[in-house]
Amino acid sequence: MNEPCGFGTVTPKITEELALILGAGSVSSDGEKIAAYSHDEVAERFWDHPYRAEVLVFPESTEQVAAILRLANERRIPVTPRGAGTGLSGGAVPACGGILLSLERMNRILDVDTDNLCMTVEPGVITAEITRAARKAGLLYAGDPCSGDASFIGGNVAENAGGNKVIKYGPTGSSVMALEVVLADGSVTWFGGKRRKDVTGYDFVHLMVGSEGTLGVITKIVLKLLPLPAFGVDLLIPFPTVESAIRFVPRIALEGRVVPAAIELVDHHSLSQAEKFLNTRLPFDQAAAHLIVQLEGNDREVVADETERVGKLALEKDALEVFVADNRSSRDKLWKARKSVAEAIMAYYKNYAKEDIVVPTDKVPELLFSVDALCRKWDLEAANYGHVGDGNIHVNLLMADDRPHWHEEMEKVRTELYATVKELGGTLSGEHGIGLKRKAYLPQFLDKAQLELMQRVKLAFDPKGILNPGKLVFWDKNGEGHEA
Amino acid sequence: MNEPCGFGTVTPKITEELALILGAGSVSSDGEKIAAYSHDEVAERFWDHPYRAEVLVFPESTEQVAAILRLANERRIPVTPRGAGTGLSGGAVPACGGILLSLERMNRILDVDTDNLCMTVEPGVITAEITRAARKAGLLYAGDPCSGDASFIGGNVAENAGGNKVIKYGPTGSSVMALEVVLADGSVTWFGGKRRKDVTGYDFVHLMVGSEGTLGVITKIVLKLLPLPAFGVDLLIPFPTVESAIRFVPRIALEGRVVPAAIELVDHHSLSQAEKFLNTRLPFDQAAAHLIVQLEGNDREVVADETERVGKLALEKDALEVFVADNRSSRDKLWKARKSVAEAIMAYYKNYAKEDIVVPTDKVPELLFSVDALCRKWDLEAANYGHVGDGNIHVNLLMADDRPHWHEEMEKVRTELYATVKELGGTLSGEHGIGLKRKAYLPQFLDKAQLELMQRVKLAFDPKGILNPGKLVFWDKNGEGHEA
Repeated sequence: MNEPCGFGTVTPKITEELALILGAGSVSSDGEKIAAYSHDEVAERFWDHPYRAEVLVFPESTEQVAAILRLANERRIPVTPRGAGTGLSGGAVPACGGILLSLERMNRILDVDTDNLCMTVEPGVITAEITRAARKAGLLYAGDPCSGDASFIGGNVAENAGGNKVIKYGPTGSSVMALEVVLADGSVTWFGGKRRKDVTGYDFVHLMVGSEGTLGVITKIVLKLLPLPAFGVDLLIPFPTVESAIRFVPRIALEGRVVPAAIELVDHHSLSQAEKFLNTRLPFDQAAAHLIVQLEGNDREVVADETERVGKLALEKDALEVFVADNRSSRDKLWKARKSVAEAIMAYYKNYAKEDIVVPTDKVPELLFSVDALCRKWDLEAANYGHVGDGNIHVNLLMADDRPHWHEEMEKVRTELYATVKELGGTLSGEHGIGLKRKAYLPQFLDKAQLELMQRVKLAFDPKGILNPGKLVFWDKNGEGHEA
Repeated sequence: MNEPCGFGTVTPKITEELALILGAGSVSSDGEKIAAYSHDEVAERFWDHPYRAEVLVFPESTEQVAAILRLANERRIPVTPRGAGTGLSGGAVPACGGILLSLERMNRILDVDTDNLCMTVEPGVITAEITRAARKAGLLYAGDPCSGDASFIGGNVAENAGGNKVIKYGPTGSSVMALEVVLADGSVTWFGGKRRKDVTGYDFVHLMVGSEGTLGVITKIVLKLLPLPAFGVDLLIPFPTVESAIRFVPRIALEGRVVPAAIELVDHHSLSQAEKFLNTRLPFDQAAAHLIVQLEGNDREVVADETERVGKLALEKDALEVFVADNRSSRDKLWKARKSVAEAIMAYYKNYAKEDIVVPTDKVPELLFSVDALCRKWDLEAANYGHVGDGNIHVNLLMADDRPHWHEEMEKVRTELYATVKELGGTLSGEHGIGLKRKAYLPQFLDKAQLELMQRVKLAFDPKGILNPGKLVFWDKNGEGHEA
């Protein structure tokens, strides 16, 4: 498995050396355990063959990570950092074998700094724990990926995870103030600091964010916190057509003068799957599409005013009804339905293609017309849902029955879909990342100059190419040059 | 002037070629004109000798910029991009001669896209024009540098300008969605797009932001817009000590549950200079420090409630009084005083060191104690003002009289000041940039690994080192290697 990348293999001697660094209990060569750690939420059958690391390690400190990288760099052994394995692009799949670096034991919240409104954490902390720790201090951590109950913050940063609150607060990267990073050669450095502003040199903090573990291993993260809004409300708004729902979205800001915390779309097919999966019903569930609009603020009356303003505007713009969820249980029910769509689809469909495309928000209707046409042409079902407020629709192309040449067919379907996305000014991935899953499609979206710059920047950070090889960057067979 | 950098010179033949690309009217070899364009707001006497470009060009299109860069790259001639020349770090000073690329004729607003809440502009548009164009469409452009009436947006992006509204909206970079960039070899590419989310490859948009023209020439900028808040108010709050003013700042978010648009500090010495300069008086002008807190929102009552909450809190925390400016003329008066401090100091002091340091917000009091001590030791005056909400204090070290060895002395003072800043977890520049002015101090703040990464990333983008040479990156005399 290593040969195609030309890397060194993990010999018994190297495993011993790793045990000296970490202690024997933190190094595993157990085949089953390695297999269990060698994938994320992308189904294994997506790949031609299963990718497997050669050894699995569990460092507990920056110093241990540094020692592992020094060793790996010297012997040119691939190192794939891994969070909770909730990724949706195969970003943590060890494409070239080598060392799988699980960060699950680096799971401490190191400080909640109320004076500087920030929090310092290790990469293995579960995102929801960060939210809770902030809330306990009366503060908001604005990151809110749907996988937050399980994902690690390190993975969120490495993939620049999005989620439900991007329109108001930006993606994960917008909350990142500083990173402690172990570079490929094992040296340890800090990019940024507990500073709200910093133009001292190139912005390597945000170059690291979303770089999928290809430029360094993140060992500490300083996250921005905000005052916690005192009140929140969710509006559930059914629309007669998907288009009318989408056309309403920009009016919220323009005419309603509100930036909601979230604007989510769930189309009829997606909602049906979630209802079946949860054995529940939401109101007006025959409508073609529902929007969930989340409003929040510190003043109950203001939130009530905004609710009324947005509701009234929606009814003027074709909404069938406006339901207001303003207590914990009705709000939870709503979001549970929204967040279970992905799982429901995976439960009911043997074959599915889960897309993460993003287009300018005004191009979402055109995008969905094209998806319709594509489904007719290729005899597919579609379920479309997601972050319509930022143009990041999770288009799901579905086939309940077996389909003999699903993968080959889907490659063609994707190429067509992506051509449309590109034409509309969109791109390949909004929040799930490129990873192994989407790498082949990168050249459809990035031009030659950009692909070459990515390769050169990768080389600048990781001259031997040991960090998460096989991701993001194209190399020729000698590990050099560009073959896209 | 070129020799130390080992670059090619602008021969008459090259000037002819430039005239062929641009038309003769867009190329100037006039010594006086070149001198007028070869500096920014950093006083020329700051340098050992005046830096001068060899030729000055005024492209009007991306294609012309691309043709200039192709030519320059081929002959290895330095190219220094330049905006309005309002910079405070010598970022646009042509340190190695060559071509000075003024972007003043690329000054069109190309679209105001209300559907996607963004605006596409050329780099030579004055920042305040962008604010006005957004406002006309009922939208907010959140960038607000104090120099906004004169600075170009291209310079704001190149230096990642901050200004007054960073605590709420982030620095310029937070508003940048996409950039059209001409790379060193003349190829043209787009980083990002009209997309609120994008994890398709490395984040080169934010690597370009703040890179001071060393990685490419920005020729188009897509800026995020927001709904325009309907109401705004400014609180002017005098405090008996600078420390009590600063200690109050984090309480606004924590106890007041408000993120103001701005929290500015003006100490007594700074305010006196501005009052003298404007021949005006502000209330309680004998107080040790004033805070200006700007609140904004869509609901008049909420803004009134927040005003009361913050005001009450301030009085509980030692404020001497709370003045509320809620009409245009009183608000303008307040901000005019705040924004004129820098100019006033330059008018009254022959010798001044204008710093742009930034520290964690809770470390501002300690920082200012050290500044006091430094002033006593070196017999200096200090005026401290600026963006206290984000820890970015413009410390100004002043000397009204002539001082025989001012520059030599200031180098020592700076080294001491920066050692303190570093110890407090701060850094060299929050919003003015490194440029030529602060480059020598970079190694005090960035470690060897980071300086080397910067050099390698620079090489990845600009292998011949023609783009704004002399800035940010350290080279040895052959234009290669690291000499920091």
